[in-house]
Amino acid sequence: MVPTHSGEHAWWLTVRFGRVKHARRLATRAFRADQREFLAEGPQAVREALETSGVTQEVFATADATDHHTDLVAAARTAGIDWHVVTDDVVEAICDTVQPQGVVARCAMLDRPLEAFLDRAPSFVVVCADIRDPGNAGAVIRCADAAGADGVILVGDSVDPYNPKSVRASVGSIFHLPLVIDRDTPGTLESLQASGFQVLAADGGGDVGLFDEALDLTQPTAWLMGNEAWGLPEQTRALADSVVAVPIYGQAESLNLATAAAVCLYTTARARLTP
Amino acid sequence: MVPTHSGEHAWWLTVRFGRVKHARRLATRAFRADQREFLAEGPQAVREALETSGVTQEVFATADATDHHTDLVAAARTAGIDWHVVTDDVVEAICDTVQPQGVVARCAMLDRPLEAFLDRAPSFVVVCADIRDPGNAGAVIRCADAAGADGVILVGDSVDPYNPKSVRASVGSIFHLPLVIDRDTPGTLESLQASGFQVLAADGGGDVGLFDEALDLTQPTAWLMGNEAWGLPEQTRALADSVVAVPIYGQAESLNLATAAAVCLYTTARARLTP
Repeated sequence: MVPTHSGEHAWWLTVRFGRVKHARRLATRAFRADQREFLAEGPQAVREALETSGVTQEVFATADATDHHTDLVAAARTAGIDWHVVTDDVVEAICDTVQPQGVVARCAMLDRPLEAFLDRAPSFVVVCADIRDPGNAGAVIRCADAAGADGVILVGDSVDPYNPKSVRASVGSIFHLPLVIDRDTPGTLESLQASGFQVLAADGGGDVGLFDEALDLTQPTAWLMGNEAWGLPEQTRALADSVVAVPIYGQAESLNLATAAAVCLYTTARARLTP
Repeated sequence: MVPTHSGEHAWWLTVRFGRVKHARRLATRAFRADQREFLAEGPQAVREALETSGVTQEVFATADATDHHTDLVAAARTAGIDWHVVTDDVVEAICDTVQPQGVVARCAMLDRPLEAFLDRAPSFVVVCADIRDPGNAGAVIRCADAAGADGVILVGDSVDPYNPKSVRASVGSIFHLPLVIDRDTPGTLESLQASGFQVLAADGGGDVGLFDEALDLTQPTAWLMGNEAWGLPEQTRALADSVVAVPIYGQAESLNLATAAAVCLYTTARARLTP
């Protein structure tokens, strides 16, 4: 469908190359933050993006992927979203994934300010402080979604959850539940407490065991998870209402971030749902 | 400490280069399997290896690491294990890790036959079928250790748990609890059942919920976890006594392997320890 008129052709090239260049630049955190945009790579993530109202800006897909994913093409058309058929090289150039499966969407960021989130009267949240691994961020978001949490809050110097690795590890969950990003760790915890949350810091050295009867997980609960390597610094732990340890029954020193989060969140979900 | 005699020097070079070459070749699965040996990289893994009787064959360390980890040097000396001081290049050449922190141990494999494991009267195990990601294998071993499981069994076409990435992800737990590797999935499950285990297949499509009262986790339990991407094939699921789903309370499709294992194992640990 290359226009025959030379002027149109040049225009088309500019637009197409401009769009591709823009999408490629979303590989960097600074450009993502500046544009408030990120990339959803692969058919599953693109499907989730298209199912989330107002998120998808445009889609780039190979001819093969366009032929194969007629449902996605139809969803984009219904929503009035541009679907650009491009070469394999272009999709690969845009994507971080080695095998992006031929389709990638440019999306508007989804996070909201803490106050707007609290207005929704959440009662079960996860707060990640200074987590650094994008795969972990995605895994915790996925886990929070699975456990029925109301949202995920990233505080301090945490990794960008819109990093392609994080988006991929969230397996669509980044589109499912509210996300808050706030550098101010003490301020965020204070706001949560002022809204009636108990803040529970997950820490192997905690003085309350996760399965202790003293722990009431039926009240509004915010789980505070620390960095993969060094956990929660003392001054952050001190802001929590309780420091809770996932019990270690064997000889392991600790659990990794995502598995510790899974155990804390599912224990909470179970307590909240048990009459 | 290079011997002055030229003949000794040449001999020393041969031995040293022979040892290094041998250790380097342990990067490949085939050589590991052939030698029944693997590498523990970094001070933490080397410490765990040295603490496990009869495992460590020799240690390679830089001069810096040797100066820094006097406790490890002493432990090796006490156990009569050779400690080779080598250049940074040699440690880097042996290791898979980008920053191996200057020390690596050549270790004897730790897994045992299923029958020998069952003789120890275990009552809480994890069976991983056809899992492919070394990081996941290590994470599940770590999690099984933390939850107090009696052992981990890898069946079918599973990843080699002695892969450096797996050893690293286990954070020492590969040295803590018995490991069984057996290609025969149906035979292994049958042996477990004959030993009084209920085999519970973890599967999102399961007909029993993990928190259902019908599920009795106090009896001897073997959790069967499937492949990261496709889960458990129908014919394997059919061999289980129950197919159990970790409930999904939000919109996520599933949990990842390590987090699903964490939730199943900790729910079991809690049930076994609750009077």
